[in-house]
Amino acid sequence: MLYGRIARTLTLLSDFGLSDVYVGVMKGAIAQINPALRVVDLTHEIPPQSIAAGRFCLMNAYSYFPAGTVHVAVVDPGVGSTRRLVAVEFEAGFLVGPDNGLFSGVLNQSPAIAAVELTNPTYWRTPQPSSTFHGRDIFAPVGAHLALGVPLEQLGLAISPVSLVQLPIPECTQTWAGVEGCIQYVDRFGNLITNIPGTLVQGKTWFVQVRELILPGNNTYSDSLVGSPLALVGSHGWVEIAVNGGNARSHLHLNLGCLVQVVLTPSGKG
Amino acid sequence: MLYGRIARTLTLLSDFGLSDVYVGVMKGAIAQINPALRVVDLTHEIPPQSIAAGRFCLMNAYSYFPAGTVHVAVVDPGVGSTRRLVAVEFEAGFLVGPDNGLFSGVLNQSPAIAAVELTNPTYWRTPQPSSTFHGRDIFAPVGAHLALGVPLEQLGLAISPVSLVQLPIPECTQTWAGVEGCIQYVDRFGNLITNIPGTLVQGKTWFVQVRELILPGNNTYSDSLVGSPLALVGSHGWVEIAVNGGNARSHLHLNLGCLVQVVLTPSGKG
Amino acid sequence: MLYGRIARTLTLLSDFGLSDVYVGVMKGAIAQINPALRVVDLTHEIPPQSIAAGRFCLMNAYSYFPAGTVHVAVVDPGVGSTRRLVAVEFEAGFLVGPDNGLFSGVLNQSPAIAAVELTNPTYWRTPQPSSTFHGRDIFAPVGAHLALGVPLEQLGLAISPVSLVQLPIPECTQTWAGVEGCIQYVDRFGNLITNIPGTLVQGKTWFVQVRELILPGNNTYSDSLVGSPLALVGSHGWVEIAVNGGNARSHLHLNLGCLVQVVLTPSGKG
Repeated sequence: MLYGRIARTLTLLSDFGLSDVYVGVMKGAIAQINPALRVVDLTHEIPPQSIAAGRFCLMNAYSYFPAGTVHVAVVDPGVGSTRRLVAVEFEAGFLVGPDNGLFSGVLNQSPAIAAVELTNPTYWRTPQPSSTFHGRDIFAPVGAHLALGVPLEQLGLAISPVSLVQLPIPECTQTWAGVEGCIQYVDRFGNLITNIPGTLVQGKTWFVQVRELILPGNNTYSDSLVGSPLALVGSHGWVEIAVNGGNARSHLHLNLGCLVQVVLTPSGKG
Repeated sequence: MLYGRIARTLTLLSDFGLSDVYVGVMKGAIAQINPALRVVDLTHEIPPQSIAAGRFCLMNAYSYFPAGTVHVAVVDPGVGSTRRLVAVEFEAGFLVGPDNGLFSGVLNQSPAIAAVELTNPTYWRTPQPSSTFHGRDIFAPVGAHLALGVPLEQLGLAISPVSLVQLPIPECTQTWAGVEGCIQYVDRFGNLITNIPGTLVQGKTWFVQVRELILPGNNTYSDSLVGSPLALVGSHGWVEIAVNGGNARSHLHLNLGCLVQVVLTPSGKG
Repeated sequence: MLYGRIARTLTLLSDFGLSDVYVGVMKGAIAQINPALRVVDLTHEIPPQSIAAGRFCLMNAYSYFPAGTVHVAVVDPGVGSTRRLVAVEFEAGFLVGPDNGLFSGVLNQSPAIAAVELTNPTYWRTPQPSSTFHGRDIFAPVGAHLALGVPLEQLGLAISPVSLVQLPIPECTQTWAGVEGCIQYVDRFGNLITNIPGTLVQGKTWFVQVRELILPGNNTYSDSLVGSPLALVGSHGWVEIAVNGGNARSHLHLNLGCLVQVVLTPSGKG
């Protein structure tokens, strides 16, 4: 046990959007169980059923929360099928949601300590959950109970953490001149975030090649002229392609999956 | 009195959207009165001035909140006109907003116990409210005071619950083969939610006919092939048309108001 | 000191949108420091890098919050450049963010009492902040500490409030017949909000001329026919052009910056 059992914070991440009451209703189900709990929305605008985007967002958010935080994540194209429902304990807190790879980004960075399948309906909103909204009927209530201090092992049958579904981030590969990766996420500003860790370029001289473009590796947006494209290590810690004061996705006509080369120049001191 | 007078939760529903500060300002007005209150957004993306969509959302959300919750709802095309401003007590808590039918979905399910017209400016933000933003100046402050335990009858003149404006949900009708209804709401996933209660098909064998389409009545999304349309009882308890892994609205070119037939087959055991 | 040192409310305003985890991560950084603090979103849908829209929204929201509220605002096209990071004390509370004019609307209404440049990394999330996300690494943590009662002067070097960057609201000008101004903001409903203070028309008889249109100055939306355009003093206190039950922006083909004349008629009693 790495922290006091009573969590004060629970986060929610989903693809439910904010135009319906799905998210509000999950918060109601939480308040019925644990009215004092602080609930923070990570985002509910994950593209419908995009497990990869959910995994990316959760992986880049969890470490900024207090130890013991419970993260409930629901991007669940298999709802109602036989995919498992799980809760996982890891160093920074707990994860609750479907076992479909959504947590594999987090768990690659910080391995699971223990995991259970959610088989105990005592901690659900109802023993007859709907077949289409496990967020409301199972995941949110289980998260609220975990945050109250209910031990993980009471939530269901222990399972081996290695049995959890993996959805690996596409790996980048070493090249003769540096690293090849791809664009794994595009944010609201049109910044193009690659799967190349910033640690590979830090302290070095580098540039990025993508299609016919060569982009200097800079430190920050304002190191280039307004309207100019550049590459930098973004706030999530990945190499990122941006346009100072603009939208790189629409400006450069690049999108998810595009190949990106990082070239380390000979003068690099790394 | 069915519960302790101090509510810990207040919900907000509106058509204000999230791009302006209208919702934030209502929360400020609440915090000035009742800083310890938990405020939960149901949704603020009701289509502008769509009382019917607001009524649908509120009706499908209220029952998931703790007893005594105060629901403040503002979809108010008549703001500044002579429509009444009301607060209503019902079994699950309180409703505060314009008397324009917004609450009639909730109150059809759980009748009003008492109602008042909001005529007492003591509980408003200011005795001179703006003529265009009663959410900030009247409804949110009144809700915050209700949640502090102010008795309903102090908020204004008692009115008869039967005098509250009704905006009935279009009723579905019995046919020779089953039930005819229509699409009453479309959610963010493009799921088409009808006005046919799921209780009419539960435990039976059934299918849905809409335009020239025949859709099997399934238990859950993943009971059909990915990309295939199906009918099921959705999480709100209504018969719903969906596409497994897709968007039924755009896939089937159906929308609000379309007629939907539920056909109960002879082998139905209900 | 105008209020108790412990703030219970912190607001967030940004151009981060809600589709990424940027806002959630700022709330995590706050919860790590000050888990009991109530965080209210003003809006995160400021158009990317629009300091003017951020200034307008903040100016129209701050006064509805409890005294001592900390307002953290991040619309920051210069992140990573040499623009200053500041915290400002004013009568209603505190402002934390980049020194780029974002606060000048608020401070024109309620002058700064004291200001500091955020030079003390003790109150940052990390002494090595990222160069692209000062909201997470500096502004949100500083706001959380301020709300805990940390004195302003401990956050960094005192600076003169008059040195803060000004981004003045375009002024409206007196004409022979009334006032000339322009549209400074368009809200989600398509209401066109001018820079003409409502106090200039209150108690008078007036109309608005914009392009070839003449619009009567009414008291509220429902004083005109549904579908008809009108002018009124909106809830923010500015002269506003609206369409009863409709969207004035799309209906009238007007937008940001359009010139607007207010004409006070001779029968005006002001």
